[in-house]
Amino acid sequence: MKFEINKESLDNLNTLVEHGKDHVIREMLEDSHPADLAELFEELRYEKAQYVYKLLESEVAAEVLMHLEEDTREKFLKFYTSQEIADELIQNIDSDDAADLLGELSDEKQEEVIALLGNEDHATDIIELLNYEEGTAGALMATELVWVNKNWTVGTCIREMRKQAAELRKIYTIYVVDDKEVLLGRLSLKDLLFSASSSRTQVSDLFEEEDMLTVMPDEPEEEVARIMEKYDLVTIPVVNDMGVLLGRITIDDIVDVIVEEAEKDYQMASGISEDVEARDSIFALTRARLPWLVIGMAGGMLGAIVIGAFEIEKQAKMALFIPMIAAMGGNVGVQSAAIVVQGLANKSLKNENMVKRLLKELGVGMLNGLICSIILFAASSLLHFDHALCLTVSTALLAVIVFAALFGTFVPLTLDKYKIDPAVATGPFVTTVNDVVGLLIYFYVGKLFMAYLGIETLAALIPRYF
Amino acid sequence: MKFEINKESLDNLNTLVEHGKDHVIREMLEDSHPADLAELFEELRYEKAQYVYKLLESEVAAEVLMHLEEDTREKFLKFYTSQEIADELIQNIDSDDAADLLGELSDEKQEEVIALLGNEDHATDIIELLNYEEGTAGALMATELVWVNKNWTVGTCIREMRKQAAELRKIYTIYVVDDKEVLLGRLSLKDLLFSASSSRTQVSDLFEEEDMLTVMPDEPEEEVARIMEKYDLVTIPVVNDMGVLLGRITIDDIVDVIVEEAEKDYQMASGISEDVEARDSIFALTRARLPWLVIGMAGGMLGAIVIGAFEIEKQAKMALFIPMIAAMGGNVGVQSAAIVVQGLANKSLKNENMVKRLLKELGVGMLNGLICSIILFAASSLLHFDHALCLTVSTALLAVIVFAALFGTFVPLTLDKYKIDPAVATGPFVTTVNDVVGLLIYFYVGKLFMAYLGIETLAALIPRYF
Repeated sequence: MKFEINKESLDNLNTLVEHGKDHVIREMLEDSHPADLAELFEELRYEKAQYVYKLLESEVAAEVLMHLEEDTREKFLKFYTSQEIADELIQNIDSDDAADLLGELSDEKQEEVIALLGNEDHATDIIELLNYEEGTAGALMATELVWVNKNWTVGTCIREMRKQAAELRKIYTIYVVDDKEVLLGRLSLKDLLFSASSSRTQVSDLFEEEDMLTVMPDEPEEEVARIMEKYDLVTIPVVNDMGVLLGRITIDDIVDVIVEEAEKDYQMASGISEDVEARDSIFALTRARLPWLVIGMAGGMLGAIVIGAFEIEKQAKMALFIPMIAAMGGNVGVQSAAIVVQGLANKSLKNENMVKRLLKELGVGMLNGLICSIILFAASSLLHFDHALCLTVSTALLAVIVFAALFGTFVPLTLDKYKIDPAVATGPFVTTVNDVVGLLIYFYVGKLFMAYLGIETLAALIPRYF
Repeated sequence: MKFEINKESLDNLNTLVEHGKDHVIREMLEDSHPADLAELFEELRYEKAQYVYKLLESEVAAEVLMHLEEDTREKFLKFYTSQEIADELIQNIDSDDAADLLGELSDEKQEEVIALLGNEDHATDIIELLNYEEGTAGALMATELVWVNKNWTVGTCIREMRKQAAELRKIYTIYVVDDKEVLLGRLSLKDLLFSASSSRTQVSDLFEEEDMLTVMPDEPEEEVARIMEKYDLVTIPVVNDMGVLLGRITIDDIVDVIVEEAEKDYQMASGISEDVEARDSIFALTRARLPWLVIGMAGGMLGAIVIGAFEIEKQAKMALFIPMIAAMGGNVGVQSAAIVVQGLANKSLKNENMVKRLLKELGVGMLNGLICSIILFAASSLLHFDHALCLTVSTALLAVIVFAALFGTFVPLTLDKYKIDPAVATGPFVTTVNDVVGLLIYFYVGKLFMAYLGIETLAALIPRYF
């Protein structure tokens, strides 16, 4: 029976830890997947988690470690001496994970571990991987792969592959290279299994040279994700500019990239500035949310100054529709920015220039603006708001929506041009600017209209519903 | 040389189409991947795309079709008679894609095609797949897979697998079943290749029965995605409640589910109500954006009524901070809701009850509220806004932030309890309610405070900066 995480099982486990029932705990967790164990450790209190973690076999512990979230992993890594990291952890995990793990250590500890790793292949691979910048294909790739030389016979292949595959959990693809390790194509395991008539057959007879989809190590991870998603790839080889096979990236790491990217964009659009989780501390959650709130307040102060400058006391009824104008400007801007951000992410905007895009957005803005203005004029008139006010706010709304749509489109396109993440535009900046500009438009239109349409006494203008 | 999509190549292709240079076009596109061709067809005008599409070989055309977006595919499907769909399309694509495609046809055409498909295995599989509801594991799975009976010898296995693999592009996993087709475990291709000493060895000697991770056909696709992501799976078998192997789901389809889900949540958070792309028509874009704008306007009308009811003309200076209060209520609510939505999606909130969650959010709200209130009081005092007003708006802000944080947490948790997508909460509803409630709080605090702190003449209260 597998261990399931729920309130009772957690209580039970906590009691077992308190009573030091190591044997029972070990038996209980025996068949659990490392990913499940990692989830369990995120749920337990730190001291309890530490206690249970130490009961695991070192191979399982290493795998669990790679499934933990980064901040929890950092805490758990403190249990290990540099010697243990080199001997127990690094030896039990793939080169890409090992490089990630080394990268998370302090500089001092990292050097210690590297010194202890020695010179064998696995170790040199890992140290080389450390040189690639985070967020690139190089940092994602693993050097564990199965490759054969095109001049080998099938017999040699099987022998060599058996050696290589010993350190691999799963063979995805067999890469064929020449004497200079330049990637030529792939050999299907299926073909090898079914058609290898004689062990003297040469590899070059079994595969066709092809123009394989590859990436270079400095390719950004988002681009690798886009390629693998588009072409439905399970693995993609990484080659240098000479075509030499360096490693391979597997889809499970890319799924993580896609999920992270999506979470980042989602948090940006929701005004959360750091990568936080619901279970993080109150302090961490507050810190992640404060920046946008402060920018929102700055916008609010600007709004107050704008309203003050227009001498609201002479046209107090105009205050009624301030929330409407501010909300609509912000909403439209975020909508426009979000569509551009998605279009840039999936490259569907690649072949469109900015003028064309802005013209289209002008169309959308005009259409939405006209519809909203008409609805607003009808609704506000039906509710017996003052006529001059209805006309003012409806006209202003059209202008606000058109401006917000154009501005919301322009900002992410411009950010992208200057290589800044366009998703920033869905956050505070566009919303705040649209709020303030919206108010400026509203009061300017108001001043203009009221001058022509005459001012009535305030008391008569304000409807009373309560 | 491969065809690359850019402005020149598109112009060039358009010219070739106009002059009917079929031979040149065919040669130009020969080496292109179906995914690239699909992208090309999304860029071309409909008539041009239609012309080029007809030049493709039927096998390539079928694959391109599955890479198109749904609305473009629908148009392209009209080129095909029912007979052609049955003979040319369905035969060239996997069962899961074939079922999707049949599902997109009109009921009438679907029946025609099914009648033409006949009774062979591929056809019966597809028709069975049609019965599974969209968005479930059953609708995602393909029946193409490699399986062996545990009582077979290695010799029989190789022979049978060769037959099965003929219709497969790639073997991911070899499933082992008993005589009743109940899934027992898997046989690694690696083991088969390297350790099959004699062709008389039985499968049962080569694999270990295991408790495999499986899903049932009615499992929601989001849950399948979560499992495959968590356990780093490339493929997952689908079994019925008797454990009988029905099919398998591969990671490429799951990547699509993850991306779609992320786009949906992102659009929801940005106030876009339909799945639209930047390149959709102005009309489609307007329609997708209008619903939230209308709800936003309804909120604005309510806001106007609230402000009217509080007789703004007697306290016109209170108008200054209306944008501040409205913006902050909305922002905080969206932040809180977004954190809950993500926590529910990745199950990290599974073991927390609502009261505990709300208490934590109360902490975050109090902390953020206090910090914001203090900053606001300091900033507004420094800018020489009226003291009573500074105190009013700072106090109201604290209350607004705490309310918005709690409400933004409560709504998605409640929606989830009643099996409604909690992401709805990041959309218009929470923002609008928070706007209106925020204004109510602000004016209520204002009335209370002004009564005690005294009213000064309006003219003196409004700072002039312009």
